[in-house]
Amino acid sequence: MGIYQNRGVVLRRRPQGELVDGDLELVDLPIPELGDGDILVEVHWLSLDPYMRPRLNDLKGYAEPVGIGDVIVGESVGRVVESKSDNYRVGDFVTCYSGWQKYFVARDSDESIHRIVDSEIPLQAYLGAAGMPGRTAYGGLMHLGKPKAGETVVVSAASGAVGSVVGQLAKELGCRAVGIAGGDAKCRYVTDELGFDECIDYKSGNLLENLKAACPKGIDVYYENVGGDVTKAVAQLLNPGARVPVCGFVSAYNEKDLQQIETPFHILGALENPPEHRFFLVSEWDDQHAETTQKLAGKVKDGSLKYRETIAEGLENAEDAFKGMLKGKNFGKQLVKVKLD
Amino acid sequence: MGIYQNRGVVLRRRPQGELVDGDLELVDLPIPELGDGDILVEVHWLSLDPYMRPRLNDLKGYAEPVGIGDVIVGESVGRVVESKSDNYRVGDFVTCYSGWQKYFVARDSDESIHRIVDSEIPLQAYLGAAGMPGRTAYGGLMHLGKPKAGETVVVSAASGAVGSVVGQLAKELGCRAVGIAGGDAKCRYVTDELGFDECIDYKSGNLLENLKAACPKGIDVYYENVGGDVTKAVAQLLNPGARVPVCGFVSAYNEKDLQQIETPFHILGALENPPEHRFFLVSEWDDQHAETTQKLAGKVKDGSLKYRETIAEGLENAEDAFKGMLKGKNFGKQLVKVKLD
Repeated sequence: MGIYQNRGVVLRRRPQGELVDGDLELVDLPIPELGDGDILVEVHWLSLDPYMRPRLNDLKGYAEPVGIGDVIVGESVGRVVESKSDNYRVGDFVTCYSGWQKYFVARDSDESIHRIVDSEIPLQAYLGAAGMPGRTAYGGLMHLGKPKAGETVVVSAASGAVGSVVGQLAKELGCRAVGIAGGDAKCRYVTDELGFDECIDYKSGNLLENLKAACPKGIDVYYENVGGDVTKAVAQLLNPGARVPVCGFVSAYNEKDLQQIETPFHILGALENPPEHRFFLVSEWDDQHAETTQKLAGKVKDGSLKYRETIAEGLENAEDAFKGMLKGKNFGKQLVKVKLD
Repeated sequence: MGIYQNRGVVLRRRPQGELVDGDLELVDLPIPELGDGDILVEVHWLSLDPYMRPRLNDLKGYAEPVGIGDVIVGESVGRVVESKSDNYRVGDFVTCYSGWQKYFVARDSDESIHRIVDSEIPLQAYLGAAGMPGRTAYGGLMHLGKPKAGETVVVSAASGAVGSVVGQLAKELGCRAVGIAGGDAKCRYVTDELGFDECIDYKSGNLLENLKAACPKGIDVYYENVGGDVTKAVAQLLNPGARVPVCGFVSAYNEKDLQQIETPFHILGALENPPEHRFFLVSEWDDQHAETTQKLAGKVKDGSLKYRETIAEGLENAEDAFKGMLKGKNFGKQLVKVKLD
């Protein structure tokens, strides 16, 4: 094992609000001895995601908090470099929850490890369009949105890792795909590069009017990522029988007083004719993990599924990239290239 | 108009957290001259409800905040003492949103005013079991819960104004009614006086085990009032095809960090087989207002629908009663008797 030198980012101090210097630290870390059934993964790419921030708090109940001194959680894609498992061979590529470190020892029975069967697309796509965000888009849209050709599908946060896939899948199904995003650059990307029919800039005012013009036949499916005023506008345009998969509602995360919050569930449930709507987690369709991943990887390979990435080079730049991402500075999937060439 | 002297409670200062002396004030108030179509209502009973507290904040979007100097909002029941309307006669009893005051001038076209057609039950019951809480219980249970005889119906906050009606209606439909409440006294009231089959004390520990024992055939309908750990326990016992009307989730109102919050929608939506569930407002069934009110009033009259009240005497005691209610000191519907005999 001595030929590998591990380094990783650990939690030194629980951040109070915004992350500051000294909360996280990049340190040398040991690599545990492999036991029977263990594999050693060399991490190539790390995914940075908003969910990581609350995990640094001293949570109760929601999810296990990162302990002081522990490696920050996160999904990565990497290569098996040692194996004491019958299921994985040296050279296999996997996605796994390694956290922010260069080497990761995992038991082969860990259900969060998935072998990559087709490595003809960029590895890091398995953290984005062909990864968890892609499967989240696919599962929510197909199983809950149930779009039919000719229907109008609206998705908020349309330029994001999930929203961008939702709209492209909807187009492929013969739907009218309308995105909602913040700012002109993101909107142009959504229409010109991703091929949505329209994209509404929620920052430009007249949200309802613009959305109405973009959806002349009303809205049949609304893939919810944001909540708040966007949801209120959409709610006025939903057709009878509409479906609303609720993936998240990021607009509420900054709201201080819960008694003032209108979650999408409050807005939609209080309508005179509430649409079919519910929150979901991608884990609901874990039994279709391999099948969906292959489907999405195929679309990446043939160029029908497009995406953007913002890449930080090296684990030493992960913290800055993470801070930037929390402020919305990334465009597309935020990644850290952990194994430098 | 000179024969009536109005007094009311107004907002002097927006409370910072807990309500303190000087935030509210009882003052003399003018009575506007009646115009064509107006009525003057003499308020007999005022309902105190948790929703009033956030209305004292400087809200954005959720609901209109009470202005500084304005009368505190609230529903009441009273008697028409002057009328310039063809629709109401002196002597009619009505429910209306008078706010915390003794006299209220309303336009007869105001859709929030409802004439009481049967005054053979205590007037104040039209603010409770035969009022908004009763209709909320009825609408959510019947239209969304859709209970069938032989099914198991669980309701949280079972001793409250809404929960108590839910369980009694479920019993009448031939269901097994199981309540969840806090503390032995409330649980005994729910079983011994309201006639639920069982009531689980969520404060006594072993919530899941106790609930399991009380619901040997699983749970078919869960009427949600609280959220949090109660919902998590219920979620594990839901039968396939279960229905969950979400009336509220008071447990979340004290949670500071939304990223830590698990609303019932998150808990239920993330289940492998999510039940049919959604948030609702009683206004959804406004077209059945009169019919449902009569139905509930009939049950109050024949003694099949029981309830408890906590009564404060006089508008000068409304503020203390309100503070007590926010701390859960009331047992049953909190009322203010505004017109003293």
